[in-house]
Amino acid sequence: MTNKILVSGIRSTGELHLGNYYGAMMDLVNYQNEYDAYFFIADLHSLTTHPNNPDLRKNVLNVAGNYLAAGLDPDKCALYAQSSIAAEVSELAMYLGMMMPLGELLRCPTFKEKAKKHPDNVNYGLVGYPVLMAADILIHRGEFVPVGDDQMVHLEMARTIVRKFRQTYGLDLFPEPLGMTKNAVRIPSLTGNGKMSKSDAADTYISMTDPQDLIEKKVKKAFSDPERVYKHQPGHPTAEGCNIFHMHTYFTDEQTRAQLETQCLSAEIGCVQCKARLAESMKEIVNPFRERREKLTEQYILDVLTDGQKRAKESAQRTIAEVRKAVGIITV
Amino acid sequence: MTNKILVSGIRSTGELHLGNYYGAMMDLVNYQNEYDAYFFIADLHSLTTHPNNPDLRKNVLNVAGNYLAAGLDPDKCALYAQSSIAAEVSELAMYLGMMMPLGELLRCPTFKEKAKKHPDNVNYGLVGYPVLMAADILIHRGEFVPVGDDQMVHLEMARTIVRKFRQTYGLDLFPEPLGMTKNAVRIPSLTGNGKMSKSDAADTYISMTDPQDLIEKKVKKAFSDPERVYKHQPGHPTAEGCNIFHMHTYFTDEQTRAQLETQCLSAEIGCVQCKARLAESMKEIVNPFRERREKLTEQYILDVLTDGQKRAKESAQRTIAEVRKAVGIITV
Repeated sequence: MTNKILVSGIRSTGELHLGNYYGAMMDLVNYQNEYDAYFFIADLHSLTTHPNNPDLRKNVLNVAGNYLAAGLDPDKCALYAQSSIAAEVSELAMYLGMMMPLGELLRCPTFKEKAKKHPDNVNYGLVGYPVLMAADILIHRGEFVPVGDDQMVHLEMARTIVRKFRQTYGLDLFPEPLGMTKNAVRIPSLTGNGKMSKSDAADTYISMTDPQDLIEKKVKKAFSDPERVYKHQPGHPTAEGCNIFHMHTYFTDEQTRAQLETQCLSAEIGCVQCKARLAESMKEIVNPFRERREKLTEQYILDVLTDGQKRAKESAQRTIAEVRKAVGIITV
Repeated sequence: MTNKILVSGIRSTGELHLGNYYGAMMDLVNYQNEYDAYFFIADLHSLTTHPNNPDLRKNVLNVAGNYLAAGLDPDKCALYAQSSIAAEVSELAMYLGMMMPLGELLRCPTFKEKAKKHPDNVNYGLVGYPVLMAADILIHRGEFVPVGDDQMVHLEMARTIVRKFRQTYGLDLFPEPLGMTKNAVRIPSLTGNGKMSKSDAADTYISMTDPQDLIEKKVKKAFSDPERVYKHQPGHPTAEGCNIFHMHTYFTDEQTRAQLETQCLSAEIGCVQCKARLAESMKEIVNPFRERREKLTEQYILDVLTDGQKRAKESAQRTIAEVRKAVGIITV
């Protein structure tokens, strides 16, 4: 029995922090064991808002390296740059675009948002983002797609296109891809406001490349229990009462956590010690990751992406051949 | 010295009539001698309005056969189906679409017209028609493009995209393509109203595949001189005065024409004889064409298109490789 096909895109930019690691990355690492998984680094999508990016190639290699260090196994999944099957994806996107009503694309909330953010760069590719995304999925006849809430509407469009294709060509080539809710873990920001985010200042999150002393320094300055002013006061060791304790629930083992709770409630330890322990827990995740990451040579990453491209291309070309036959174009 | 590069699209549908033959077809036949010419049959474009066309392949072969019979020489030009380099063209269109402002596309008169005509099929591909057309030209770094008046605005968009590409990537890869006014010959309709057109009834134009007796029959019924009711009246043998005489100016040699003029003015001949002579002139064009056309086997046409594809693909892949390098995507 073959596994179900899962396709997931990975953003080609952005620093990697603990929040991503616990969210998106661990999800993909788990998926590769259960699905026939295609993971692509979405460098083409990034061009819709940043057409001229001299770091594009570097970013792709960096992101690929990060995901490999986090546990993606090239024997278990196809990891590739979206652009490395650009010919197939854009040809499919062209055919699909001819069945995608323009009105639906213009009404799409993510398009409206981006158009508002970059009013001087509302280009044809930008409004077609959901068509390109549909092509990314359908090129492998993907059945499952991990999506965040903001992508749900795009996935719905992919499903619309699949039905339209079936209707137009009387061919059941594509399954209607199903969305899978991403891991909902929301690691809080060090400021206590909202979740860790790369768009905030660097001292509000722990990067997966932060050295040990920087982690200690960032956590030391982090927001903790606003009600506990002096060390001799008892603290409020709950997710709501203390941001530091909230983070312990993600990063520190249960036994240690119970101990910290008791010591905090009895004012036996102060926030400084509690933060030092949190920094330890974070380092236990960041350090081994960083060590694995540093061992990955550019050549190795390139080899993985080349192998991923080969597998993705085979799958893509099978699909394109079927689509060409359906559309009835002269060469097959 | 190499010739300048000329690119021209050929509509993939429509019956061929004398008007086309004297207009678009003879133009291309002339261009192949002076330019490095790429002629593509625009089957992909036809999908924007007719996604499901079971006759697509047949139409492409038919159109290719017609142009070969009209005088296109596979040794002098690359004749190919647009879809046979779909991968390259759509990949280029994708990159170009990211520099094409959506507003300009939405304001384009041809888009507005088509949207009005097919309100239930205003799709993403339809609004992107000028982007795909730009890709058709730029994929060969075309310098000259024969365009009708309605295409001038599309060509202007292609020029905008070229400038934007140069600006974004600092690379002078594409020349700004120049439009060439098409042969302005307007063969009149047999009804005397407007020009011959495939969208009118079949008895208003002479098809290049009409057998001899049908040509005679159609011309016999054609509109002539409304002022000449009886044969004994003198006629008005000018382009304005008589539709039949107007057509003689295109199809009949000068000497014969002068003779007909005299005979008409002196009421020596009637319209019936004059029309019979016109039918003769038309048959002198249609018959040899039809004979050449009938000799072309499907296999020969396919071979020509395959050879054309090979040459177009080589040119296209050279361009795509340069574009990928400019955009900075990982594989080159």
